[in-house]
Amino acid sequence: MTDDPPFNPALLPAGFVDRLPPEAEAEAAGVETLMRVFAAHGYDRVTPPLLEFEETLLSGSGAAVAEQTFRLMDPETRRMMALRPDMTPQVARIAATRLPDVPRPLRLAYAGPCILMAGNRGDGERQISQAGVELIGPDQPEADAEIVALAAECLATLRVQGVSFDLTMPALTTALVDAGGFDAHVRGMLMRALDRKDAAAVERHGGELAPVLIRLLHAAGPAHGALAELAAVDLPPAVRVHSARLAATVAAIEARVPGIRLTVDPVEFRGWQYHTGVCVTVYAAGQREELGRGGRYLSNNDEPACGLTLRPDIILRAAPPLPCRTRVFLPWGTLPEVGAALRAGGYATVSALGDEADARAAARRLSCALVVVDGRPVPVDGI
Amino acid sequence: MTDDPPFNPALLPAGFVDRLPPEAEAEAAGVETLMRVFAAHGYDRVTPPLLEFEETLLSGSGAAVAEQTFRLMDPETRRMMALRPDMTPQVARIAATRLPDVPRPLRLAYAGPCILMAGNRGDGERQISQAGVELIGPDQPEADAEIVALAAECLATLRVQGVSFDLTMPALTTALVDAGGFDAHVRGMLMRALDRKDAAAVERHGGELAPVLIRLLHAAGPAHGALAELAAVDLPPAVRVHSARLAATVAAIEARVPGIRLTVDPVEFRGWQYHTGVCVTVYAAGQREELGRGGRYLSNNDEPACGLTLRPDIILRAAPPLPCRTRVFLPWGTLPEVGAALRAGGYATVSALGDEADARAAARRLSCALVVVDGRPVPVDGI
Repeated sequence: MTDDPPFNPALLPAGFVDRLPPEAEAEAAGVETLMRVFAAHGYDRVTPPLLEFEETLLSGSGAAVAEQTFRLMDPETRRMMALRPDMTPQVARIAATRLPDVPRPLRLAYAGPCILMAGNRGDGERQISQAGVELIGPDQPEADAEIVALAAECLATLRVQGVSFDLTMPALTTALVDAGGFDAHVRGMLMRALDRKDAAAVERHGGELAPVLIRLLHAAGPAHGALAELAAVDLPPAVRVHSARLAATVAAIEARVPGIRLTVDPVEFRGWQYHTGVCVTVYAAGQREELGRGGRYLSNNDEPACGLTLRPDIILRAAPPLPCRTRVFLPWGTLPEVGAALRAGGYATVSALGDEADARAAARRLSCALVVVDGRPVPVDGI
Repeated sequence: MTDDPPFNPALLPAGFVDRLPPEAEAEAAGVETLMRVFAAHGYDRVTPPLLEFEETLLSGSGAAVAEQTFRLMDPETRRMMALRPDMTPQVARIAATRLPDVPRPLRLAYAGPCILMAGNRGDGERQISQAGVELIGPDQPEADAEIVALAAECLATLRVQGVSFDLTMPALTTALVDAGGFDAHVRGMLMRALDRKDAAAVERHGGELAPVLIRLLHAAGPAHGALAELAAVDLPPAVRVHSARLAATVAAIEARVPGIRLTVDPVEFRGWQYHTGVCVTVYAAGQREELGRGGRYLSNNDEPACGLTLRPDIILRAAPPLPCRTRVFLPWGTLPEVGAALRAGGYATVSALGDEADARAAARRLSCALVVVDGRPVPVDGI
């Protein structure tokens, strides 16, 4: 037996936090705003459960996050259940099994908390917040563009500054390297070199492809320059399909969101395990963490789909604070209709629970800027 | 090795469900409405995590739900964590450890999902939805009344019909039986008889108290009749404290919510493990399940507190359906400002992703009631 250290009742497991006032309200309001934008564009909300059977949650697109997932046993069936680390596979499951007969394009939205076993890359949080959309059925640049435009509208509504969308096409790199006909060993070294953006190693392992690969490695940057480089290099037809799709998607996004900041990294593929088309990562100026990510993939039953998940918890760090309700103290005996009128006018009222000696002092103590005197709100610190 | 039966990918563990359109939206909108009412009365939102260390989550008021709680091991600390079955103990912890210096009365609100290991009594659901308030610091009838009035306002805002609040005072029964000086064995039998509302058994085990107990057993019903019976019987001073507090709370509630339907059951105590004062259960006509429950208790560090937790998932079954956004189809080439104006006017727009042969047919297929023609929305099935 060992002596456990004395337990601190305020301690939470690493990566879990209490959101306090006013952050908790700001995060909830942020999620509501995102969901309102999604709903206005015809995205219908679905709410999958926090837990599912492991077999369902971690199959298909869910397999990518299997090792990040907490499991527990269902005492009723003795089957293993998993706490969701991501909602996208759940929404794909719902589209395939609950809504197979709803006409496509099927537009779905979702929001909720997710749990990761180890801390999320970057901030170490193990409970994260997601709010996203999936557009299921169509396989067109316009569908990818609709998703990016939605995210841009969300972030503009929350007045996040300096937003940029980084586009990648992981299948392009794979197709290009496949076209080179490398043996498995060399291919592995080349992919690692590309992943690390190590031009010298790409030169060493890339054979005849090396000049093209290095040129594309250096092409990463604002969309138009990167697309011009892609257009200028000589690509096999199997690769050209992907670069053409990427260019068409950029054009469709720019048609919808004039002035959007788009960058393209033609040979980036890291972290996109189940994506089949254009992928996007969302950043804000001065914010190290991604505000969201998404892309094109094959949903259950190989149905084409694209989606994007925003992170309300991260977005709130980049968004200006929300205006709070001004608090008004209602001294004992204030008529109920006075309080009701103030609440209808957007104030938060704080009621006395008994006759107070000094209403202004009570108001001040309870962080009220106003106090009702003779039926009207007046500044606590006024004359 | 055994052969597992083929696994159905649509299967969820018992007690877990997918909320689909339009129920998912209705539930989220219901939660938002509740939280807006709470915020308007000065209740500040806190958002505790889904998981905590077992020691923290299941101590104090949390002990009552310990056996309903899923546990998992934190791989980092090897300590056991618990998935919350109830948010009230978390809010009590936050009040005591994170907000000890915020002046009292401290008003906090919260909303989120909780997980029960076995199905909840009644509907068998293992993921439930909570939205509630805690009023920490004061120990006055006016505080209890504020909580009940808030719940009444919430349900009126959601237009739930036939709402009633059932008040109990578990400490009254305990004090009365304590005053009888029974030995432990007889006391146990008497408490069980009262729990079962078994008048014959109360007669058998109640000794000199039997006539009072049976009279109170029959007094359960509309508040005024029950309080009149309580006032008429001869109660020891230690019991009179509780009946007087109950009567004062009823008066304070009625002063705030004229016409509220209140019932009182003076000798009910089942299911209130950690409550020290007036307790309340909320029902709606024709709805077997409770819409909410709450009461007075001692929070961490024995700080007086009262609170009430509503169940948005149950409330939505009793509330009339929300009006949905009308869906408008935007044919390919619709000007962006036409869509934006419709969304600002409360419509949901559904954009074409390419040139459609028949816009009306596409609109009908995607459940749109309106379609934009010449820049204006017209009925899909109109002339």
